[in-house]
Amino acid sequence: MKDMTNLDQFEVGYDIPAKPGMDAADIQTPALVLDLDALERNIKKMGDYAKAHGMRHRVHGKMHKSVDVAKLQERLGGAVGVCCQKVSEAEVFARGGIKDVLVSNQVRDAQKLDRLARLPKFGARTIVCVDDLANVADLSAAATRHGTQLECFIEIDCGAGRCGVNSSEAVVEIAQAIEAADGLKFSGIQAYQGAMQHLDSYAARKAKLDVAIGMVQDVVDALKDVGIACDLVSGGGTGSYYFESNSGVYNELQCGSYAFMDADYGRILDENGQRIDQGEWENALFILTSVMSHTKADKAIVDAGLKAQSVDSGLPTVFGRDDVEYLKCSDEHGVVGDPQGVLQINDKLHLVPGHCDPTCNVHDWYVGVRNGKVETVWPVSARGRAY
Amino acid sequence: MKDMTNLDQFEVGYDIPAKPGMDAADIQTPALVLDLDALERNIKKMGDYAKAHGMRHRVHGKMHKSVDVAKLQERLGGAVGVCCQKVSEAEVFARGGIKDVLVSNQVRDAQKLDRLARLPKFGARTIVCVDDLANVADLSAAATRHGTQLECFIEIDCGAGRCGVNSSEAVVEIAQAIEAADGLKFSGIQAYQGAMQHLDSYAARKAKLDVAIGMVQDVVDALKDVGIACDLVSGGGTGSYYFESNSGVYNELQCGSYAFMDADYGRILDENGQRIDQGEWENALFILTSVMSHTKADKAIVDAGLKAQSVDSGLPTVFGRDDVEYLKCSDEHGVVGDPQGVLQINDKLHLVPGHCDPTCNVHDWYVGVRNGKVETVWPVSARGRAY
Repeated sequence: MKDMTNLDQFEVGYDIPAKPGMDAADIQTPALVLDLDALERNIKKMGDYAKAHGMRHRVHGKMHKSVDVAKLQERLGGAVGVCCQKVSEAEVFARGGIKDVLVSNQVRDAQKLDRLARLPKFGARTIVCVDDLANVADLSAAATRHGTQLECFIEIDCGAGRCGVNSSEAVVEIAQAIEAADGLKFSGIQAYQGAMQHLDSYAARKAKLDVAIGMVQDVVDALKDVGIACDLVSGGGTGSYYFESNSGVYNELQCGSYAFMDADYGRILDENGQRIDQGEWENALFILTSVMSHTKADKAIVDAGLKAQSVDSGLPTVFGRDDVEYLKCSDEHGVVGDPQGVLQINDKLHLVPGHCDPTCNVHDWYVGVRNGKVETVWPVSARGRAY
Repeated sequence: MKDMTNLDQFEVGYDIPAKPGMDAADIQTPALVLDLDALERNIKKMGDYAKAHGMRHRVHGKMHKSVDVAKLQERLGGAVGVCCQKVSEAEVFARGGIKDVLVSNQVRDAQKLDRLARLPKFGARTIVCVDDLANVADLSAAATRHGTQLECFIEIDCGAGRCGVNSSEAVVEIAQAIEAADGLKFSGIQAYQGAMQHLDSYAARKAKLDVAIGMVQDVVDALKDVGIACDLVSGGGTGSYYFESNSGVYNELQCGSYAFMDADYGRILDENGQRIDQGEWENALFILTSVMSHTKADKAIVDAGLKAQSVDSGLPTVFGRDDVEYLKCSDEHGVVGDPQGVLQINDKLHLVPGHCDPTCNVHDWYVGVRNGKVETVWPVSARGRAY
């Protein structure tokens, strides 16, 4: 027992995989790594697209759960604010200084309603989705109690088969209730078609979105018939934003994955039959992993398993390598096929995660890299905020 | 803008789903809930089994990542310490007061070797797995640098096809190198057959374990032939511990999932063809979730999706209910089939996760419940510690 003072050295920071200025080669693995150049190009490209098409871009913060990334999207991509799925995420974004926050989901629990109604006190315009008349009175009571205003989008189910009302009549009924309720303001329609985003075929995606656009148009017309205007019609993801942008009825996008990309989204095809990760967007997010065992000639074992990613949408791919392949994922191990035996102990691989959103949610830090150096380390600010 | 002082109320604790003393009905969802009675019975039962069979029980801390649960396993189940998969987990357990910690995995990175060699300074016996001769010199150098002793298990691949050496000759060679190295001590064999734990059939699991036991016996004999004794032979999981316990060669178990149970393990069958979650073990871990939308007559939408669980081993089941079924999991939503339309908004369901380990890793807190009241809230101490 000597040198006890050394213990203090890992009281602080021992759980952070990198620090600014270090060589990228020294990042502790497994870690989430962002290629900052690629990230900035993705953000700027989508921002330019939205601007050219007269669309507001409310970036989906539930993908990255990072105040820092959201602010980069505001600065470089002209984002108007964020959407997110949970009150706890909205709290992180509002407290982090995002001024326009949509909870693109239903809030029904009494404590969550109370927390939601406090959010405008942080200076954030606060919008929430509604799909049930019974929710209106509860939202109104919460806003009135806190002396705040909550804006409401009525969510329609335009094909995802999840939340959302199913008829124009229901939309009109809820919108009228919102208009009549203290503390609430009807601000538009939430119409995100989530189920089609990952269909490979452009034509198949377009067919689904055409149906959604028709439904949205019917709803907007039905509201107009009773004298209610829709300020915002919001929706659109990485697999569909061009359809909404050219629909003539949507005026706000909600894209998330475009900024980071992942293996599952990367496989979908653009109008010309090209994978979207081969031109439209760049892979900016990687799980950096190291080889830690190699006792079989043709298999290397790496240190990124299920605790470093989500495999719900398939296994990760190995970026920039066609000589090795990620074959199997267990809790803390990945089995990488290495038929030519090229991998050595401590070699590092950049994995493209199967699904970016739930992968980011198991990490605490983004390590931002440029030109081989760690430039920044950002917290995954809303990591674990699921309630 | 009024009542700004209220903001302070959620500066602290707004991210904690419950507090001791509250009714279980008021827990914020989604949350990980532990049935403390069931947990304690599981822990005591395995402890009694190990004691009756003369086995040390080194509980697998990578499953729960909780110092509190590990200490309960020591107190009620006679656990001798923990194993875990990462140096960062070992740091949490050692700093939390666990006195015997095995990293049941390879440590090859220079920074990780350095952190590992510091762990004995916390007063923890520190053991690590080795499967490569080249690792011995690095471990020795790190231990020597810190003036500590690292104990080594040689890991053999007894069927998992992952890490571990593949021949008795390799074991003998590495053991002799460890014995000759400063700062290291050879302490035994790591022989965990991970690939068979989830096979449904008891006979199929037994056949795989018989092979593993034969391999372990060969290794122990080969070491004995060169005058090296194996103090510990360690392995065994929830699907196999009775085989190791009756093998005559293993003397230490490494069970994890038995304490919490999950849907995937629950499906495997005991010697009598009964599911192990119907007698051998009780479900003690649940994802508490709430209904948040119900616009379709036959489907309820709940608030636990991929950010509240891992579905790598299948979807969760709904505990104690055969009238509803969890059908589909997206990032923040679960679709629950409700053919009779019995679910109401804000109704709560107890989900049994498909796979406990990576599900625990996405939560920050365990809410311990007994008799309808929250009795304790424990941090998931090593949540996110993947490096």
